[in-house]
Amino acid sequence: MKKIYPFLLISLWMSFQSINAQNSKDSLIIRKIYDEALQKPAAYEWLDFLSNQIGGRLSGSPQAAAAVAFTKQVMDTLGLDRVFLQEVMVPHWVRGKKEVGKMISSKLGTKEFPVCALGNSVGTGAEGLLAQVIEVSSFEQLKELGRGQIEGKIVFYNTPMNPSYVRTFQAYGESAKYRFSGPSEAAKLGAVGTIMRSLTTRLDDYPHTGSLGYQLNVAQIPAIAISTNGAEELSLRLKQDKNLLFYMETHCQMLEDVLSYNVIGEIKGSAFPDEIIVVGGHLDSWDTGDGAHDDGAGVVQSMDVLRILKSLNIKPKRTVRAVMFMNEENGLRGGKKYAEEAEAAKEKHIAALESDAGGFTPRGIGVTDDANGMDSYLKWNALLKPYELEIREGGGGADISPLRNQGTVQISLSPDSQRYFDVHHTEIDTFEQINQRELQLGAAAMASFVYLLSEYGTR
Amino acid sequence: MKKIYPFLLISLWMSFQSINAQNSKDSLIIRKIYDEALQKPAAYEWLDFLSNQIGGRLSGSPQAAAAVAFTKQVMDTLGLDRVFLQEVMVPHWVRGKKEVGKMISSKLGTKEFPVCALGNSVGTGAEGLLAQVIEVSSFEQLKELGRGQIEGKIVFYNTPMNPSYVRTFQAYGESAKYRFSGPSEAAKLGAVGTIMRSLTTRLDDYPHTGSLGYQLNVAQIPAIAISTNGAEELSLRLKQDKNLLFYMETHCQMLEDVLSYNVIGEIKGSAFPDEIIVVGGHLDSWDTGDGAHDDGAGVVQSMDVLRILKSLNIKPKRTVRAVMFMNEENGLRGGKKYAEEAEAAKEKHIAALESDAGGFTPRGIGVTDDANGMDSYLKWNALLKPYELEIREGGGGADISPLRNQGTVQISLSPDSQRYFDVHHTEIDTFEQINQRELQLGAAAMASFVYLLSEYGTR
Repeated sequence: MKKIYPFLLISLWMSFQSINAQNSKDSLIIRKIYDEALQKPAAYEWLDFLSNQIGGRLSGSPQAAAAVAFTKQVMDTLGLDRVFLQEVMVPHWVRGKKEVGKMISSKLGTKEFPVCALGNSVGTGAEGLLAQVIEVSSFEQLKELGRGQIEGKIVFYNTPMNPSYVRTFQAYGESAKYRFSGPSEAAKLGAVGTIMRSLTTRLDDYPHTGSLGYQLNVAQIPAIAISTNGAEELSLRLKQDKNLLFYMETHCQMLEDVLSYNVIGEIKGSAFPDEIIVVGGHLDSWDTGDGAHDDGAGVVQSMDVLRILKSLNIKPKRTVRAVMFMNEENGLRGGKKYAEEAEAAKEKHIAALESDAGGFTPRGIGVTDDANGMDSYLKWNALLKPYELEIREGGGGADISPLRNQGTVQISLSPDSQRYFDVHHTEIDTFEQINQRELQLGAAAMASFVYLLSEYGTR
Repeated sequence: MKKIYPFLLISLWMSFQSINAQNSKDSLIIRKIYDEALQKPAAYEWLDFLSNQIGGRLSGSPQAAAAVAFTKQVMDTLGLDRVFLQEVMVPHWVRGKKEVGKMISSKLGTKEFPVCALGNSVGTGAEGLLAQVIEVSSFEQLKELGRGQIEGKIVFYNTPMNPSYVRTFQAYGESAKYRFSGPSEAAKLGAVGTIMRSLTTRLDDYPHTGSLGYQLNVAQIPAIAISTNGAEELSLRLKQDKNLLFYMETHCQMLEDVLSYNVIGEIKGSAFPDEIIVVGGHLDSWDTGDGAHDDGAGVVQSMDVLRILKSLNIKPKRTVRAVMFMNEENGLRGGKKYAEEAEAAKEKHIAALESDAGGFTPRGIGVTDDANGMDSYLKWNALLKPYELEIREGGGGADISPLRNQGTVQISLSPDSQRYFDVHHTEIDTFEQINQRELQLGAAAMASFVYLLSEYGTR
């Protein structure tokens, strides 16, 4: 046994040297990626155009078509190996005329509230809907009240997001079910409409839209969101006059499906071209604002990942694809279609990274690797710590989730979440809310992680 | 030897249990601190008043006196053991009439630029100052140019902050010397005035004020800051006409010193009342904005630390003092006076934590402990990680720095720094730039760390 000791030591020393060399090469490249992202704000400039020249771009809208054309044109200038459109049929929901929400009380008088229709909801039409309101704070309470109390009424989900969580998405996760499932749950008990308290911990006057999901074989009833200040006041007024009436008028409707596209740009891998890494965001947005944070940010950051790799002349060993998914907000058709086509073409997607949590300062990269666990990713923490970025267990995104069945590692950019629900799905999700450095740091974080994935793969 | 094994194991097990119990008690208390801070936004409400009802509060101004009265009144309501004012004479610099900065060129015409006087600078008076401009990018270049090129001219320090650093304070540290020392360095070579490129990486139209420091026995020349867009344009115009003239007019002046105060609130320690922990920020601000981030945030967070401890009925073992220091911006008289009086009274200040980097999402707590190193603090990382907060080596703040000679551990709150220099020392450092959750998370971070210090001391 003694004899192999020197060999072992030398071999250990050599592998240590090689790890050092690798780290030092990688740390130099990551430094260059950050320099490029911070010194040349391409993502920020593209987002300016996407937000201010195109604006809100709900699936099926002319703006969504403009966003497809714009991002394809941008990627056409980057010297990529391939830029292409992937056809996908998307739902076409339109909001129509500005919504009305009004309290009518013989005791308290009449008062208008800031409201908006929930995405995919049916409209009341011009005749509107007038009914008594019953406030609930949970599905449990709704069920306890039962048909006797609910039938013929408008159910008011006054379900505030919990402000105590440090990560606001945790609170969103708990309360968003009332927006998505609330209308059908109420309709099952005979409700004629719903009012949803907007999903933010902040008290303000902006109603937050977002998708509902009607259940099969349940009456489809109109559904609106009310601002948090509005919810507070309506709750107070109901205590003062439980018989008050609420009038809601929405002109939204679901039209025929429309042809749209995922927009895809690709750099071919130099060593393992068949191993594909996706980096993406979603190209559609709600119509209320400009969709700058949700998810213009993820779109322009993903394109910037390709730009940065090209401009630093980094030739990734594995294929890197930026995908602008269409229709995350009210259908996920783009994400589903992408995964279907990947499977049909027997493509091997080793990993997918989505940025869909706003263009704020990146705090972490979340990873879910069902097959291999976290060890190989956590080793990269040493490389990313100088950039105040931490690799964490648990990642993913709506658009990339259909790839999970194919064994694709699910990865998300995790920006600081404190301000996201101030603007999410509202008229103030605009370019003015974007900070250039924060956005570009996100692009740098994504490019760095994609670089490491492209060098070392997922195991 | 064998005999002591079981004893050792039991003893190890017991100390493990006790560490666990301690951690579990501490983690429960820290959870309560965060709940209190996030559910009851006291700091945010106080900052609304300080920013919107009082506003910019430069040392010696009526607003600074109002800020003294307001913060004392707030602390008087908190049920503290002691609230008191500490007298301090402060400089009284006044900006006077709005400044003028204008390029005059026979080739290019006349153009006004957004400018403001640097703090503590002498004014030009109504007659103004008209001279040729010479642009420099460093002190080295200034010295190379020498008296021959500099004499009689206005020196234009076009010294951009480096955008590549992830922590923006690093870039500020490198460039701020031109603001502070630039006027005297230029005057030594015969310059008649200086123009400073504003200290931000962003390109915009806001001039950033801030202190200069005139050197003894060097001519005191007028000094202004120009916005970054202004600096870019002036640099371009100088390339087009190197003989262009610049007219600057500032009406600032230094008046007689004024009596002012540090405002101090205290909770007496239950076990070690003679060991004092300071938590603080500075009460004065520049006059251009409302001083919401710099440093209204630190002030209201420090008061909120005491409020949180009181409202959770936490009785700290060591004395905790919130100190609102006067005159950080243009003299540091409050910080110096506080340390002098502490020394004269033979008080034992074991630690001081300053929040003076904006009311943004806290990322870290920086610690400099000259005597004991980092080990005992780093152990607390496990308690703070759930709150996305990291203990880091290296901390301090201007106001608490005079305590360092007395062996006081220097600690800083380190918020995310990306947006700070967008607003720092400008007219847009206002309450609108404050996010409630970010500010309150800072208060929670400070309260948690102060709680741990009060329980376990600094070694």
